[in-house]
Amino acid sequence: MAFSLSDKYLGKFISTFDMAAVENELKTAFDLVKHKNGEGSDFLGWVNLPYDHNMEEYERIKKAAKKIQDSCDVFLVIGIGGSYLGARAAIEFVQGNLYNDKKKNTPDIYFVGNDISSSHMRDVISICEGRDVCINVISKSGTTTEPGVAFRVLRSMLEKKYGNKANERIFVTTDAKKGALRPQAEEYGYESFVVPDDIGGRYSVLSAVGLLPIAVAGIDLDEMFKGAKDAEDEYTQSFYNNDCVKYASYRNLLLRKGKCIELLASNDPSMTMFCEWWKQLFGESEGKDGKGLYPASVIYSTDLHSLGQYIQEGQRTLFETVINVNIEDNFVIEEDKTNADGLNFLAGKTINYVNQQAVLGTALAHTDGNVPNIAMEITSRSAYEFGHLVYFFEFACAISGYMLGINPFNQPGVEAYKKNMFALLGKPGYEQATKEIYERLEKLSK
Amino acid sequence: MAFSLSDKYLGKFISTFDMAAVENELKTAFDLVKHKNGEGSDFLGWVNLPYDHNMEEYERIKKAAKKIQDSCDVFLVIGIGGSYLGARAAIEFVQGNLYNDKKKNTPDIYFVGNDISSSHMRDVISICEGRDVCINVISKSGTTTEPGVAFRVLRSMLEKKYGNKANERIFVTTDAKKGALRPQAEEYGYESFVVPDDIGGRYSVLSAVGLLPIAVAGIDLDEMFKGAKDAEDEYTQSFYNNDCVKYASYRNLLLRKGKCIELLASNDPSMTMFCEWWKQLFGESEGKDGKGLYPASVIYSTDLHSLGQYIQEGQRTLFETVINVNIEDNFVIEEDKTNADGLNFLAGKTINYVNQQAVLGTALAHTDGNVPNIAMEITSRSAYEFGHLVYFFEFACAISGYMLGINPFNQPGVEAYKKNMFALLGKPGYEQATKEIYERLEKLSK
Repeated sequence: MAFSLSDKYLGKFISTFDMAAVENELKTAFDLVKHKNGEGSDFLGWVNLPYDHNMEEYERIKKAAKKIQDSCDVFLVIGIGGSYLGARAAIEFVQGNLYNDKKKNTPDIYFVGNDISSSHMRDVISICEGRDVCINVISKSGTTTEPGVAFRVLRSMLEKKYGNKANERIFVTTDAKKGALRPQAEEYGYESFVVPDDIGGRYSVLSAVGLLPIAVAGIDLDEMFKGAKDAEDEYTQSFYNNDCVKYASYRNLLLRKGKCIELLASNDPSMTMFCEWWKQLFGESEGKDGKGLYPASVIYSTDLHSLGQYIQEGQRTLFETVINVNIEDNFVIEEDKTNADGLNFLAGKTINYVNQQAVLGTALAHTDGNVPNIAMEITSRSAYEFGHLVYFFEFACAISGYMLGINPFNQPGVEAYKKNMFALLGKPGYEQATKEIYERLEKLSK
Repeated sequence: MAFSLSDKYLGKFISTFDMAAVENELKTAFDLVKHKNGEGSDFLGWVNLPYDHNMEEYERIKKAAKKIQDSCDVFLVIGIGGSYLGARAAIEFVQGNLYNDKKKNTPDIYFVGNDISSSHMRDVISICEGRDVCINVISKSGTTTEPGVAFRVLRSMLEKKYGNKANERIFVTTDAKKGALRPQAEEYGYESFVVPDDIGGRYSVLSAVGLLPIAVAGIDLDEMFKGAKDAEDEYTQSFYNNDCVKYASYRNLLLRKGKCIELLASNDPSMTMFCEWWKQLFGESEGKDGKGLYPASVIYSTDLHSLGQYIQEGQRTLFETVINVNIEDNFVIEEDKTNADGLNFLAGKTINYVNQQAVLGTALAHTDGNVPNIAMEITSRSAYEFGHLVYFFEFACAISGYMLGINPFNQPGVEAYKKNMFALLGKPGYEQATKEIYERLEKLSK
């Protein structure tokens, strides 16, 4: 058993009565996901994806990854939100957050087109100088501003570098039929993959969206799918003794008891981007209708020396969900003859052993500080574990969202800033909005 | 004027009556900082640091930086919390978050000893293979677990590599007289610098703690100090028309109106670590006695596609402070004959122009979504600007903390996890705590 969830620290905060009181609504929420008859159920393609993946495309992704590994030093992945977070999370989870810096047989991977920064773009272009480059542009519509601008710039860079041969270095992940990238893929002969219609961005890491970059980083897709399949088997069948159900219930109970922030904590820096992926999954799924826990994250012990004070003694509005990375290692701390640093009490112990005592000590300290602690543990950072953990959180998020009484699969609020931005930029079709927003700005400046 | 603060979006949330009502307590808070007679005032060394820096040491730091630049490819900075966040924030602020990846004349810089991860340590060691390495170990006591373990491991690596010559590659920043590192520096002849007694970790970036790594990255310390000096002149003199005072008042008023999360947002990925520095500054200063805003951060537009939904429509518990990075550039988006992506309405515009419309559109959208927006702007990412901005937030934090009614300069809660960890690890002197914690664990497992 590589993953576990425990309520061992929750006794002070959640009672068996609390749990019993929400059982019926939890069951309803679980059934809505399982039977695919809740709001937004046309976006439940991820539920059976581990078993139902298009195998023709899956094999083609593996071949494309091999081709990319063989033909470039730098792989640029253009995408924003769900089109980059999952793959980046997977790569750092398995290969560590220093993947690009390490000696390896696979290309460096940069995630671009997820901001609007000219200096960041310039730095990426300079990094590509004198090195072979491939691009994967990931966008369902092909017209999203950030990846769209990045693709314009970087395709032009590639065409200057390789002429007509640039087309062989461009890989497109987009809508099966519609959108701006599909016809371009056909016209220029870019190899292409499909962003499924029934899977939203934040649930798409196990689709082609995530698979190509993950495979390029040398991660075993079969292992990852094995983990996801085992999770599908484990979590979708029975409501009873189901860790997804338990996690959904704990977090909703803590929300109802007045907590408004869920801190996802982990004790290894390789989990940083996994936490970012989780923040989108839960924040975008649940943050609507004035509801939802604010998803924040910390890495221990790093952030115990920055946010630790707040967590221990600040406003009591938060609880934490800890993913304890507990991997046996043989990195033993050596004895120092002088013991000048006073750390000889650690000599002969492994670094992971020390890390485990820090995790345990922190859980007890935070419990004392009235921070409820949902304790999870993983015993490896393999591709299998990643696939399993991703599926666990996706399924738990769907249950949790229905329990919260929202549609966990839409994101209506994301359009608000875009609409204003397009009005300000004078996008065709936004003429009325443009007029209105400039009138508003005039009033604001008075 | 390179930095500005505006209340242009706050009219809906904070009235002139609100401001008038808190003027007296704000004035009291300001005076406590200015006259250094509030709680914790023996930790106010940072207030006059821009003008009062020890110039002998300042010049020695510059020389050491030059020596490090000339003698290594990889510079390892060992420190946790305030002993790494400020320097890392400065380097990414000025040089971008791809500093290590870019071609440059200065060493790659890795911040280590801020976690307890064996895989991260292994990766760093592998990155050092075949390359010249220098170390800066930063720790006031010299006995903090994370940097202590890292220094044991990495010093041993250096001694294997360079023998006796390793000592010339080790630079120590520690207490002037006490602690475990000071006698080692003297015994082995490490060049050393001082962690001042009257400056806490989170306020220490402009002391030797931050200066050496920042200088090694090729950042102009004189420019940075000029910015800090101008800020000291600007913010410490008069209570009236003082942006530090305004910022402290806005955030405390929003807290009193029920907000519990302050989101520091910026629109450039180079600000990511600046936000982390800010989170420690405010979280550790204010998160005590059950009080304080939870400090979170986002990078736009990246996170508008992950947390944007929550910010727009989730639980109304947050406000945002936006540092708009508005730097003119000549990176023009080109016209595309086919306009396949529909983005020709951006042709001829600069990337920064688009970024600015995104910032403006977001501020209006979030205002409509009842997220108060404190608007800041910087027009460069120079060393000057960094020095200025750091001082601005430090001084504002001190005022804000006194207004909140806490001591902004201690961090009693950080000890809680450490005490448990030491008990679990059987550290000498913790025998009674060890006994108690194992009894507690036994009960917990029943």
